[in-house]
Amino acid sequence: MRYYKVPDETVSRLPIYLRNLASASEQGQENISSKELAELSGFNSWLIRKDFSYFGDFGTRGVGYNIKKLAKEIKKILKIDVVHKTVLVGVGNLGSAVLAYPGFTIYGFDIVAAFDADPKKIGKKVSGITIEDVSKLGALKRRKMNLGIIAVPSGAAQKTADSLVKAGIKGILNFSPVHIAVPKKVKVITIDIAMDLARLPYYIAAS
Amino acid sequence: MRYYKVPDETVSRLPIYLRNLASASEQGQENISSKELAELSGFNSWLIRKDFSYFGDFGTRGVGYNIKKLAKEIKKILKIDVVHKTVLVGVGNLGSAVLAYPGFTIYGFDIVAAFDADPKKIGKKVSGITIEDVSKLGALKRRKMNLGIIAVPSGAAQKTADSLVKAGIKGILNFSPVHIAVPKKVKVITIDIAMDLARLPYYIAAS
Repeated sequence: MRYYKVPDETVSRLPIYLRNLASASEQGQENISSKELAELSGFNSWLIRKDFSYFGDFGTRGVGYNIKKLAKEIKKILKIDVVHKTVLVGVGNLGSAVLAYPGFTIYGFDIVAAFDADPKKIGKKVSGITIEDVSKLGALKRRKMNLGIIAVPSGAAQKTADSLVKAGIKGILNFSPVHIAVPKKVKVITIDIAMDLARLPYYIAAS
Repeated sequence: MRYYKVPDETVSRLPIYLRNLASASEQGQENISSKELAELSGFNSWLIRKDFSYFGDFGTRGVGYNIKKLAKEIKKILKIDVVHKTVLVGVGNLGSAVLAYPGFTIYGFDIVAAFDADPKKIGKKVSGITIEDVSKLGALKRRKMNLGIIAVPSGAAQKTADSLVKAGIKGILNFSPVHIAVPKKVKVITIDIAMDLARLPYYIAAS
C-alpha cells in the first residue's frame, strides 16, 4: 500500500477515530460505516472518508469499514503499531492520574518508569511503578525509551525537558502550561487541560 | 464590529492564541506580530491572520497586534469575557489536579464547587473548595452554574452527566475516556489525556 503525505489535521484526528473504533469494538461491532464513525467522533462523514483516503480505502459499500483492519492501519500510520516505552516525570496529582489512566494502552504506550523530586515519594509504588529519583534521570539513556511525559510544576518544566532530551527522549507530552524549548529533532505536544473548557461557552446557549 | 460565523477550526485555535498572548504579556510585551504568534503557537502566520479576519482586523503594519485589545476580542468571541462559574464532579487524582490547576483563570473560569461520592472526601477541603456529596448534585440548580467538569471513573460518567444536565449545566468538559450521551442543547467536549501522546510517534524520527 502506498502512503501519501498525511496532513497534520488528519494526523490529529486519527487517534480520535482509534478511540471510537475501540469503543465500537468493545460493543461487539465488527464493521463500522463512516456515518456511524461521524456520530461517534463528531466529524463529518465526508471528512472521515477523505482522511482515510490518504492511506488507502478499505471500506466496502453497504458494509463499511472492517474495524480491526482499519484500527491496524491507523496504528501503522501513527507508528503506534509497536509498543512505546514511556517515562513520566512528576508524580503529583496529575502524574498519578496519568499512571492510573487506562487510555494509554489503547494507543500502545507502556509507562515503564516514573520520576519525582520529592524524597517522600521516591521508592514508593504508584499504579505498580516504583518512583525513582529525578536527579538520576540521566541514567535513562541506556533504558532505551523515546517518549516522555512531563507533569511537573511549571517552574521545573524546562529543566525536566532538558534532562529528557539529554537522556535521548525524542517526543514529549507536556502537561505544564508553559512553552518549553527543545532542539528541532524533538517533538513537543503541550496539553493545557483548561484550554478545552475555553471552547465551551462559545457553543452553549446564553442562559 | 460585525461578527461573521466563525468556523469550528478557528474556535479551537482561539484558546491557544489566548494562552500565547498571556505568556507574551507576562514577558512585558505590548504588541505581537502574526509571525511571533506563529512561533509561539505553531500555526502558520497566514492562518493566524485569516482566523483574526473573522472578527475584524486590529493589526497595524510594522507594529502588529495590540495584545490587550486582541485578547479582549478573543475572549468576547469565545464568550469568556465574563466569569463562568464551574462545577467539578470527581475529586480523585485528576480532579484534584484540575482544582489546583492555575490555567483555568486565564480563560475566566471559576471552579466554585466540587462533588465526590467518597464519604471520606466529603466535607474535606481541596485547593480551598469544600467537597460536597455527589448525591446532592440536584440542588446545584439554584446556584446558577452552566459549566461542569467530569473527572469520575468511566463507569460513573454517564450518570454524572445526566445529573449535571438535570441541574441545568449547558456545557461539559469530560475527562472520562468514554462517550457520554446528552440532549442536543448541551455541548460536551471529551478530553482523552492519552490521545495527544498518540500523535507523537508519527512525528519523531525512528530511533
